Amino acid sequence: MNAYQPRTEDMHFLLSRVLNAPAQLQALPAFSEVDPELMQQVLEEAGKFVGEVVAPLNRDGDEIGAQWQDGAVTMPPGFKAAYQTFWQAGWPALSARPEDGGQGLPSVLEAMLYEMLSAANHGWTMAPGLLHGAYECIKHYARDDLKTLYLEKVATGEWLATMCLTEPHAGSDLGLARTKAMPLPGDPQGRYTVSGTKIFISGGEHDLTDNIVHLVLARLPEAPPGPKGLSLFLVPKFYPDGSRSRVHCDRIEEKMGLHGSPTCVMRFDEAVCDLVGEPGKGLNAMFVMMNAARLHVALQGIGLLDAAWQKADAYAQERRQMRAPGQGKSAAEADLIAEHPAMRRILDTQRAWVDAGRVLAYRTALELDLVQHSPEASTQADAQRWCALVTPVMKSVFTHQAFHGGSDCLQVFGGHGYVREWGIEQIVRDARVAMIYEGTNEIQAIDLLVRKVLPDGGAAMNALLDRLQNSLPSDAKSSTAALARLQTLRAVTAQIVQTAPRDAALAYRVADDYLRAVALVLMDWAWLQIENGLDAQTPNAEARWKKPAQALRSWVLPEFQMRTFIIVQQCAAVAS
Amino acid sequence: MNAYQPRTEDMHFLLSRVLNAPAQLQALPAFSEVDPELMQQVLEEAGKFVGEVVAPLNRDGDEIGAQWQDGAVTMPPGFKAAYQTFWQAGWPALSARPEDGGQGLPSVLEAMLYEMLSAANHGWTMAPGLLHGAYECIKHYARDDLKTLYLEKVATGEWLATMCLTEPHAGSDLGLARTKAMPLPGDPQGRYTVSGTKIFISGGEHDLTDNIVHLVLARLPEAPPGPKGLSLFLVPKFYPDGSRSRVHCDRIEEKMGLHGSPTCVMRFDEAVCDLVGEPGKGLNAMFVMMNAARLHVALQGIGLLDAAWQKADAYAQERRQMRAPGQGKSAAEADLIAEHPAMRRILDTQRAWVDAGRVLAYRTALELDLVQHSPEASTQADAQRWCALVTPVMKSVFTHQAFHGGSDCLQVFGGHGYVREWGIEQIVRDARVAMIYEGTNEIQAIDLLVRKVLPDGGAAMNALLDRLQNSLPSDAKSSTAALARLQTLRAVTAQIVQTAPRDAALAYRVADDYLRAVALVLMDWAWLQIENGLDAQTPNAEARWKKPAQALRSWVLPEFQMRTFIIVQQCAAVAS
Repeated sequence: MNAYQPRTEDMHFLLSRVLNAPAQLQALPAFSEVDPELMQQVLEEAGKFVGEVVAPLNRDGDEIGAQWQDGAVTMPPGFKAAYQTFWQAGWPALSARPEDGGQGLPSVLEAMLYEMLSAANHGWTMAPGLLHGAYECIKHYARDDLKTLYLEKVATGEWLATMCLTEPHAGSDLGLARTKAMPLPGDPQGRYTVSGTKIFISGGEHDLTDNIVHLVLARLPEAPPGPKGLSLFLVPKFYPDGSRSRVHCDRIEEKMGLHGSPTCVMRFDEAVCDLVGEPGKGLNAMFVMMNAARLHVALQGIGLLDAAWQKADAYAQERRQMRAPGQGKSAAEADLIAEHPAMRRILDTQRAWVDAGRVLAYRTALELDLVQHSPEASTQADAQRWCALVTPVMKSVFTHQAFHGGSDCLQVFGGHGYVREWGIEQIVRDARVAMIYEGTNEIQAIDLLVRKVLPDGGAAMNALLDRLQNSLPSDAKSSTAALARLQTLRAVTAQIVQTAPRDAALAYRVADDYLRAVALVLMDWAWLQIENGLDAQTPNAEARWKKPAQALRSWVLPEFQMRTFIIVQQCAAVAS
Repeated sequence: MNAYQPRTEDMHFLLSRVLNAPAQLQALPAFSEVDPELMQQVLEEAGKFVGEVVAPLNRDGDEIGAQWQDGAVTMPPGFKAAYQTFWQAGWPALSARPEDGGQGLPSVLEAMLYEMLSAANHGWTMAPGLLHGAYECIKHYARDDLKTLYLEKVATGEWLATMCLTEPHAGSDLGLARTKAMPLPGDPQGRYTVSGTKIFISGGEHDLTDNIVHLVLARLPEAPPGPKGLSLFLVPKFYPDGSRSRVHCDRIEEKMGLHGSPTCVMRFDEAVCDLVGEPGKGLNAMFVMMNAARLHVALQGIGLLDAAWQKADAYAQERRQMRAPGQGKSAAEADLIAEHPAMRRILDTQRAWVDAGRVLAYRTALELDLVQHSPEASTQADAQRWCALVTPVMKSVFTHQAFHGGSDCLQVFGGHGYVREWGIEQIVRDARVAMIYEGTNEIQAIDLLVRKVLPDGGAAMNALLDRLQNSLPSDAKSSTAALARLQTLRAVTAQIVQTAPRDAALAYRVADDYLRAVALVLMDWAWLQIENGLDAQTPNAEARWKKPAQALRSWVLPEFQMRTFIIVQQCAAVAS
């Protein structure tokens, strides 16, 4: 089994040639010193660290996994040392503010780092992956005294953090959460105690860092039922005086995959805690980091699919089976697997997904930076719209593709894919969870259509489509087909807007199809951008870029018609 | 976690009301005594055995798995006792000839038995699942003295059997096999020795039975390279005199799933063996059982998908999350998962696949019986054509659906689906292998289009479509749409036939799409048969049958347009 190796030259091509990111970032005051050379250098260093330090630990992460005993969790071999090197080198704080101990670099570099990390070792990456949300949460909502104690530790990753949301009877529906918080009687600091059980807590307990900071959703006395009754609390594993909090890891889950990340059942037993933000505003604090967190999960999908593709491609380039049609009979007794059309199709198609995913994810990370740093209101509004509409699409389709396309890559190995030897089946098992967490993919679709497209009658979506349309390369032949799909999507959007009031369930029924249709329009746009960035100097353009573009048009985009047909059929059934 | 429970009333409804199988079978001399009551009784008994004895062992099969030590394999707890009960009750010999120790019952009953067994415990079922091919092989090809020694033992399942085909460098391409056979010098019985390593041998070693009969593909001296140089040999674990053969299990594979079935690396170290059939005809002996074996794998897919559906349905009927649109606000704080449109869609869609799969698989099993037992040549020819064309479609789409639809069922559980607790993730892991073995799904597609449809210019396929068309219920409204799809499929077939000579790779590129298009036409036909079988007496017809039929038309059949569009586009690209 070969471990994943970052191919930073491809990523850099997309960032600089296709997205023109360095120039766009340098135009922002916050990043005026971020020149292309610095970006490339950070990317190369990240790739080196990921390939040399993190990737080799992936197999043990799966086979040995995180181990629970008597409330303590031992991480797989090498995980702790790699993590200590990681945070000490400043990687978790890449895009954190300098005043918090960070490096103040653009989000897009962090996105690329996490794509590579997830590809190399999804389990290991779960630990630092949760830091960024906790950092934002503390930064935006915590009192100054809490910030003094925790902000820099979390920003730099010296301490890791958790988000304790889910309960045994409250999965997607956090409003059902029952964990209770009570004022600590007579406490001069106005602290609380929190009691209850949280499940599915990634990294709830481990030995990577000296301390762990838990952010916990709980309900104060007399709080109303439902989501508005939830407040957010902070409780560390160890208090500043060194004493241990009453937070216990009762067990870790046996899972399909992701064995390198302990999924903990956490029991809060009147644990003394601090309120973060206002009472009853606990969910708001979660929502502020939602787009970044979902983009992060989309990047896991893109990374895992790339890792699966790398393995399948290497195998298909080396192994021979049967005669491929239309091949000159080679001297060998059979042709390469890569020469068989069904396998070629799998390989080129997954590559089409990976590279479109990168363009869209890097673009979205750039938009996140524009939301925060652009001095222009209209740019900010555009960027905000992009993030709101594109992020749920990204989270859903790229986690879907990591699993399903990863399974296609497994198929390239035949029976050898089903055994552990080559590491491909681990990717498929690991990837599956990303379709569920951070909002299931079905919830992403509802978020897109029901919460974001319908309420303004499709206006925001049409504005996004305008933006895509205006940036289609004018001279590309394929732009014509892309334009037609854009128009169809506008029409379909209008039809749902029109029909939805007559059937409350309609939009919920077609939300998945709508999200897929939007995804395919975005994929198409992304590949037109890539092709527009190619020139005579692009190395190996035919095999590297043009074949996947062709695969996209041959095998992937035809789904658009099917999805819009399904939607139209459903609308017609309501109308009749 | 609830273990799978066979629902034989549904299966019986499809067999008797929809397929009218008892009357068709009784018309054959071989089954004149197989009346509907006998069939129902066998089905009920089978269901009872599967539910009570086999299903409860499934979890241990996964978690403890088969264990290898020093060349011996210990099966998971309870597997041996269940198997001993199984063969002694006569189940493996259900459709074997009475003169071989069998019960001479129709293949369709065996098909239903194996659907239930696979649903209950895929790993356990692998062991007896391989018997039938070995039985056919020995019955058709072995010398009489070998039959005397082995036929009844294998027919009854007192001894289990293996098929040793794959080698480290010969997976799908058996022509690359290098295992050598040599005449045993001076042996009065004309025996041979076989030497080489075979991999991916299911049940190569275990403790379920006293003896194991291996059928091994190997190459005699001076045999030509490629598939025509392969001969078939029989070597038991223990010879009739009680001595141990030189067949060794060197290790078992670590797999993604199916841990209850040991996947063995078998080393043949000059093991004394007998030739089965003629030299150089080893692959012919394999091909004789191919349709039955592939149907068997399709039934694994159908069974596993049904098991996944049962789990998801039970969970969705019990668990509440969030408000579903258009539901009357229930007194509970949230609505049932089953009431959410996205989840309803998953559940009804998988059910549409399962029941169509049953109709088609049972129909195919009936056709297998007609091939063997019909006195009429034209019926035999029709049946032969059905089996040749429908079997690869079944194998591919129902193993695909078991994995992908099983994953959809996992999604119904949210995070709880990803952990072991509910047993749903095991189904997804177990199911994945069936897309690979017995000919990968890509090979099924090539078998269909390149080997069976193109050579006669589409004549056999058109004859199959005639047969489907002639059996569409004339009064059903949905028959119109079905008819249109049939015509499109004819046109697309003709277009491939016409264009294929201009591009050797064309048919290979679109084989998967073609197979899917055929599958959707078959699904549609199957559901029209089911609806035609409903009447006022059918219990719970709306929820049980009409909802899945509607799901089929809303969510599944639209793929037909996409597939045919892809094919047409590819043909056009060649023609231009």
